[in-house]
Amino acid sequence: MNIALDAMGGDNAPEAIVAGAVEAARIYGVTVSLVGRPDVLAVELKKHNTQGLDLPIVAASQVVEMNEKPAAAVRTKTDSSMVVGCKLVKRNEAQAFVSAGNTGGALAAGILHIGRIKGILRPALIGPFPTLKGACMILDIGANADVRPEHIQQFAIMGTIYARDVMGVTHPAVRILSNGEEAGKGNQLVIESFKLLEQTPSINFQGNIESKEIPTGLADVVVTDGFTGNIFVKTAETTARLMTQVITEEIKKSPLAMVGALLARKSLGRVRERMDDSHYGGAVLLGLSSVVIVAHGRSNAFAVRHAIRIAKQSVEQDLLTKIQRGIAVVEQEQPATHAAASSS
Amino acid sequence: MNIALDAMGGDNAPEAIVAGAVEAARIYGVTVSLVGRPDVLAVELKKHNTQGLDLPIVAASQVVEMNEKPAAAVRTKTDSSMVVGCKLVKRNEAQAFVSAGNTGGALAAGILHIGRIKGILRPALIGPFPTLKGACMILDIGANADVRPEHIQQFAIMGTIYARDVMGVTHPAVRILSNGEEAGKGNQLVIESFKLLEQTPSINFQGNIESKEIPTGLADVVVTDGFTGNIFVKTAETTARLMTQVITEEIKKSPLAMVGALLARKSLGRVRERMDDSHYGGAVLLGLSSVVIVAHGRSNAFAVRHAIRIAKQSVEQDLLTKIQRGIAVVEQEQPATHAAASSS
Repeated sequence: MNIALDAMGGDNAPEAIVAGAVEAARIYGVTVSLVGRPDVLAVELKKHNTQGLDLPIVAASQVVEMNEKPAAAVRTKTDSSMVVGCKLVKRNEAQAFVSAGNTGGALAAGILHIGRIKGILRPALIGPFPTLKGACMILDIGANADVRPEHIQQFAIMGTIYARDVMGVTHPAVRILSNGEEAGKGNQLVIESFKLLEQTPSINFQGNIESKEIPTGLADVVVTDGFTGNIFVKTAETTARLMTQVITEEIKKSPLAMVGALLARKSLGRVRERMDDSHYGGAVLLGLSSVVIVAHGRSNAFAVRHAIRIAKQSVEQDLLTKIQRGIAVVEQEQPATHAAASSS
Repeated sequence: MNIALDAMGGDNAPEAIVAGAVEAARIYGVTVSLVGRPDVLAVELKKHNTQGLDLPIVAASQVVEMNEKPAAAVRTKTDSSMVVGCKLVKRNEAQAFVSAGNTGGALAAGILHIGRIKGILRPALIGPFPTLKGACMILDIGANADVRPEHIQQFAIMGTIYARDVMGVTHPAVRILSNGEEAGKGNQLVIESFKLLEQTPSINFQGNIESKEIPTGLADVVVTDGFTGNIFVKTAETTARLMTQVITEEIKKSPLAMVGALLARKSLGRVRERMDDSHYGGAVLLGLSSVVIVAHGRSNAFAVRHAIRIAKQSVEQDLLTKIQRGIAVVEQEQPATHAAASSS
């Protein structure tokens, strides 16, 4: 299997990206095509023992930077690592594409150069959220700011298949993010989507969920629009970072507290591990006709390695065929909904 | 000044509520009317030294419980502390109403029994979020799940007046919560509201804000719809609580770490203080024709005292007249918008 990797994308590129690729090639036995500037990547590869590993370099002269406007950058930078990587996958020279670069750029390049699975109205970004029982998968966390109930329904189907076949959850419980747990709570979109989800036999829909219940592990899959989902994920990340910052500041003010923190450092390390989601490999852009993984911008080698693992598992599980089949079943069950959805 | 207090509402009622009322009466020199069951409240009052304080009991035989459906409960329980408290204010026997009970119930009772300020389309719940520079005021955090741009515009005006006259912020910076900081980022509601906010001279509008920038203190007022705002606030609270729980769990596993935590306990206490928002007194329901404060359900005496302080300040600052005037100015500037808004 060949995974195309955007070797130039991410806060720690190319060093951490290439290091993650080397680890992944060794541990998972996959070919990783490093897409980017050949001179730069050759230097990086020399830092590692790559004997027996298959790590070809695929030339791309440009980079979509983290702060660029995604759609415009993808359109103008046709020789960027992002566009070249997506095209490799489109031509079936690679089976999946992984990038830790500009998320919007990866979305735009994926939609433009790879395209959607037949029947999918809107690809969605699915990402893990740590809970006391493992990870809950949330989608959409940022691909679509405005959606309709039939999009949410497709998100629920794609999320169910992903949780079951990639994360290994039996009969995943699906809930919709709302501002109250009782049925009937929510904005118009939630209330209408709720009705449609109730009528979708291929998912295990269990009703609304409030954000405060997500960490308890009450749901395996949470569906929401990409605007709310994005704000949810960023707010959680921000609060965790703010708390860490405030704790560090206060401890540094007192020598006694610094000794205390030193004594507790193993425990604090385990806290970091439990709150860390890098072993989940980042977010997956579901609904495209190839596997596309969008790792976090600040990914280190460990996170890149796991993003490649998720890509490999998604390909092995034949995720895309399963999604296509799952969507087709709903289309047959609900011809009216589908007709309404495709006409708009 | 007489503040009507729902003495039966909240997780710690009536004990903590009455204790907070006694503190407030002593420190701020206000009359606090304790609304609830006279027998229960008389017993609570006897626990305190109330000499020279004005703490009349106003009889109400029912309680809107925390888990009741708000609108129905307020309609059927006409002798509840919530309804009786709102009616006191409506008859001008008290100048403000404070409750730590069911938030939806306080909203419903306020809208039903007190009513809106002339020109206000939708009352909104405004609440504080701790930042590195103080508090940022966020509205709407839960009164309206679906809103239109003209509602967001009124939220911005009410938020500006509140931040300036109650929180003492000079020329408060207003931003709209979005999934990206650049203009043009957001869902349809954000994009359309952005245009309207740009054309509102009475506010200091500075564009979009992502949730990750809120803790830095980039905005004094953040406007959003009540669905997104509610999820934002609850997600932040939840993440902070989850982190505290995980840290406590890990520290308890190791005797060494427990010694460490003991040495750092003063610093950790200061962390709790900095993350604690109870001295901001809870959320205020802006847009009603009386001052209504909705304190957190888990309010202790300290939080109740500060909720009463905020009520007093809001009355002293003549907040309601200022809001009415602020809204009238915009109506004159934008007759078209106002006409469109009032006809719907």
